[in-house]
Amino acid sequence: MLFASILAGGTGTRMNLGDTPKQFLPLADKPMIIHTLDKFCLCGEFDAIYVGVHQDWTDYTQSLLGKYHLGEACPIKVVAGGETRNDTILNTLQAIEADYGVADDHLVVSHDAARPFVSLRTIKANIACVQGGSACDTVIAAADTIVHSNLSGDAIVDIPDRAQMFQGQTPQSFRIKDFEASYAALSDVQKAGLTDACKVLLAAGLPVKLVRGDSSNIKLTTAMDYKLAQMMIAVHESDVNDEAGD
Amino acid sequence: MLFASILAGGTGTRMNLGDTPKQFLPLADKPMIIHTLDKFCLCGEFDAIYVGVHQDWTDYTQSLLGKYHLGEACPIKVVAGGETRNDTILNTLQAIEADYGVADDHLVVSHDAARPFVSLRTIKANIACVQGGSACDTVIAAADTIVHSNLSGDAIVDIPDRAQMFQGQTPQSFRIKDFEASYAALSDVQKAGLTDACKVLLAAGLPVKLVRGDSSNIKLTTAMDYKLAQMMIAVHESDVNDEAGD
Repeated sequence: MLFASILAGGTGTRMNLGDTPKQFLPLADKPMIIHTLDKFCLCGEFDAIYVGVHQDWTDYTQSLLGKYHLGEACPIKVVAGGETRNDTILNTLQAIEADYGVADDHLVVSHDAARPFVSLRTIKANIACVQGGSACDTVIAAADTIVHSNLSGDAIVDIPDRAQMFQGQTPQSFRIKDFEASYAALSDVQKAGLTDACKVLLAAGLPVKLVRGDSSNIKLTTAMDYKLAQMMIAVHESDVNDEAGD
Repeated sequence: MLFASILAGGTGTRMNLGDTPKQFLPLADKPMIIHTLDKFCLCGEFDAIYVGVHQDWTDYTQSLLGKYHLGEACPIKVVAGGETRNDTILNTLQAIEADYGVADDHLVVSHDAARPFVSLRTIKANIACVQGGSACDTVIAAADTIVHSNLSGDAIVDIPDRAQMFQGQTPQSFRIKDFEASYAALSDVQKAGLTDACKVLLAAGLPVKLVRGDSSNIKLTTAMDYKLAQMMIAVHESDVNDEAGD
């Protein structure tokens, strides 16, 4: 079976727009998280979608699902997130297992709620890869030269070949059992350091393939990102209107 | 002596805005390259500024300097660029040597014309570092997780510790003699591969320090970057007007 785990556990308010975590801020006609969930619903290939949100925001998220008529095409379940990103992933995986049991062929596509511009093409490429038997990470070619510093961050150790350097995005997709086993095998120190799901898999020696994302699949973190996102939506809508007028 | 080498040698028209290279496109009230040159003139510490532009654009660039009254506070000289980024750097260095001679203490701060949002603070940090005896590169902390792929780009080799990964920007600053000697020592194959000035210095075993830039010091490459830049200028101007109104 195929599941989505949408990560919205943060209470990040770095956008300085009050106390609302960024994933609930409006983008055009609806909250950011609804744009993201729409993409996963539209995909049509998931047996169920799980959303991990901070425990203070579960009721509000549930109310949004009703307001925007989500969950009609495919079940969406709201789960309380954990302290860390990996804890939130684990909470959604445990909820999936509580509802659907444990099986070797239970696969999950995990994605940041704060990346609402993910394309259907990228989601489907993740699904194809994980159904083909490999965990995968969504990346784009590094836009800038990447510089590797020494530990104190004051001098260059290496400027690696840019052709092999990528910027990580999400989705990240894997077998539920593989992630759980890999995470359980980590020490507490490793758990604190390995905040990236694919890094957890790599630490356990599991291969992770690369899926190409798009530069528009940005993570909205700062106030400037949020302004850029509003501009991207406006450009997109004017393109759609132009096409409709042709 | 202290020189600036502003790199505008490209004819890149990836912004799909006609045949004008991006560095000559307007941003608010003047061309991008004039914003960049303004910053270096305002700094007040350069003995002279050299601009490397494609040979088809030298006359036009010269006319812009007159139109925007640049070169009154500090000499600015337009030089024909070369085939590659490093060739354009070398052409500006050779022009400096033709005008001011060769000396051990001739230092250069090199910068992309297409990064008009560079701050005075960043330029001055470069000057301080290179005058202190070290070459330096301007970087910001990597915004995304950086993923290192295998040679074929289809699987992850490593996800290095993000605390040691930076995105390279410019300025890049060094002793003129060090860059010339390092570049001359490269094979043709190395010259084709080492397109980054700091990488040329590293290949010669020279240490390169890191100077922290700002996330706003973006390189304008795509049409979306150009829209973002116009938005950044508008936000900046409204901030300035708000302050003026207080």
